[in-house]
Parts: sequence; structure tokens; C-alpha cells
Amino acid sequence: MFIETILHHWEQTIKRATAAFDQYDDEEYLKQILPGKNRVIYLLGHLTAVHDRMLPLLGLGERKFPHLDATYITSPDNPDLAAETSEIATLKKQWIEVNEALTNGLRQWTAEEWLQRHTAVSEADFAKEPHRNRFGLVINRAAHVSYHLGQLVWLKK
Amino acid sequence: MFIETILHHWEQTIKRATAAFDQYDDEEYLKQILPGKNRVIYLLGHLTAVHDRMLPLLGLGERKFPHLDATYITSPDNPDLAAETSEIATLKKQWIEVNEALTNGLRQWTAEEWLQRHTAVSEADFAKEPHRNRFGLVINRAAHVSYHLGQLVWLKK
Repeated sequence: MFIETILHHWEQTIKRATAAFDQYDDEEYLKQILPGKNRVIYLLGHLTAVHDRMLPLLGLGERKFPHLDATYITSPDNPDLAAETSEIATLKKQWIEVNEALTNGLRQWTAEEWLQRHTAVSEADFAKEPHRNRFGLVINRAAHVSYHLGQLVWLKK
Repeated sequence: MFIETILHHWEQTIKRATAAFDQYDDEEYLKQILPGKNRVIYLLGHLTAVHDRMLPLLGLGERKFPHLDATYITSPDNPDLAAETSEIATLKKQWIEVNEALTNGLRQWTAEEWLQRHTAVSEADFAKEPHRNRFGLVINRAAHVSYHLGQLVWLKK
């Protein structure tokens, strides 16, 4: 039941985020949420790249979109960067695709697999900090989505 | 281990929030995070009231500060509302106190107790939606903290 509950939390968080992103049109994707703050396109790219990184961290396969990191993780947003409408559509598809891959993976795990270390923590560190398991990583990443959702709702419609 | 991991996530989230609130001085508590958005004092009062409501929801006792709801849950923020410095100090203490009561309670639970329904869900609904347990409630409330932390970091220092 712990597993069913965290799976439900993960899926609800993704669903809420997808619904929040879906309410904006292409023009709004290129607007800053508030003056000087990230644009909507940056938040979607950032969350997609971070979730893509979860695939190898959780032993669920290779990354699908490693090219996103340069624009959406290692660089801050650049509001002067133009984007084609097609890029927004592509990003939306990638967001869906990476979360489907993750959710399908999580659904297969046994309790033991949920409690294994994730690959960014060494065996030595994991022995000292056993809460750095896959379960903890999934909760943290869901919290990271909520963090940015709190910002996204501040875009004036 | 599921329990240790969620407890760690809960405690880290509260610690991060407390550190974030602690970085602002009294004058900043009365400033809107951004024009037209909630003030820092409102976010702290809101989170304190919501966590205070968790006590009866989780069967951990009576509420400590039910009077907070009128200002911080059922009303939107009113930036013209003055606040004494002493009110800010009181709110900070209440935030610590309510989270200590919650965390001490969570630490005592067995796995069965974590998976019991919380008191806002009826037995009939719980039979259909068993993820509406105390464990799910704690994850959701931690995510709610992260949601508002994402907003709080946008206050210009």
C-alpha cells in the first residue's frame, strides 16, 4: 500500500502539472511568468530534462532527450531566445513521453526494488544514508514539480 | 524503510522551509513577494494553519491555533493589514511548535498506523480509495510546502 500511495501521488502530480501547462497558448509559453522570472517554456523544458535524467538514476534505461540539458538545466532562461511553435509542441510531447516511461517503470517494481539505492549515490554513502533510495528520489522529484507549479500559477492570464 | 524515507522527506521539507523563512527580516515579512502576490507573513501563517489542521486529521490531537484560519486560510492576503513585530515572532514559534507536534506523532506510528485513513475521508470512500491514508496526506502536505517555497524564493532580497 505504501507503493500504491506513492504511485498515486506521482501520477497525480504529473497530471496536475500537465493540466497547468496545457492551459497556456504558444504565445504565453514565450512570456516570462513575472518580469525577470523564467518563461513557461523554460519551466516545461527544465522539468522534462530533470525527469529524463531520472531514467538512468532509477535504472529504467538510457536518457531520451539529453540535449535538453544545455538549454534547460545548465543555462538560466534567456527571454530573448526565440522558439518556434513546433518546439513548444515537441517539448509537450517529450514531457508526456518521459513521464510515461518513468511511470511504466515504477509500476513494475517490487518493494525491494523501490528501496534500492539510486545510481547517483555510492554504495558506501547508501550504507550510511539508506533513505537515498529510489522511493526517496521519486518523492523528491514530485516535490520539485510542485515547487515550480507554485511559480507557474503566478502567470497572469 | 518506506517509513524512514517519508519521515526524512517530511523533516527535510520542514527544515528547508524554516531556513527559507528565517532569512527574511521583519520588514520583509510585510512585503508582497511580488506586486499583487502574497506577503511572506501570509505564507508562513497559511502553512502554519494548514499544518495545525493536520493534527486532528491524523489523529494526533486537537488543533493548537485554530484562530489562524480566519486570517490565513479563509481570507486572501490583505497587504494593508498591519502586523506587529511580535505577531511575526509568534507565528514563527507556532510554525516550529506545530511541526514538532506533528513530527513527534509521525515518529511513533507503526506501518499499519501510517496506512490508516485520515479523518477527512469517510470509511466508505476509503474502501474505494485506500491511497487516502495518512501516508498520502503527509506526502501531499509536504508537496504543498514545496509549492509555496517555489513562490517564496522569488522575493527580491
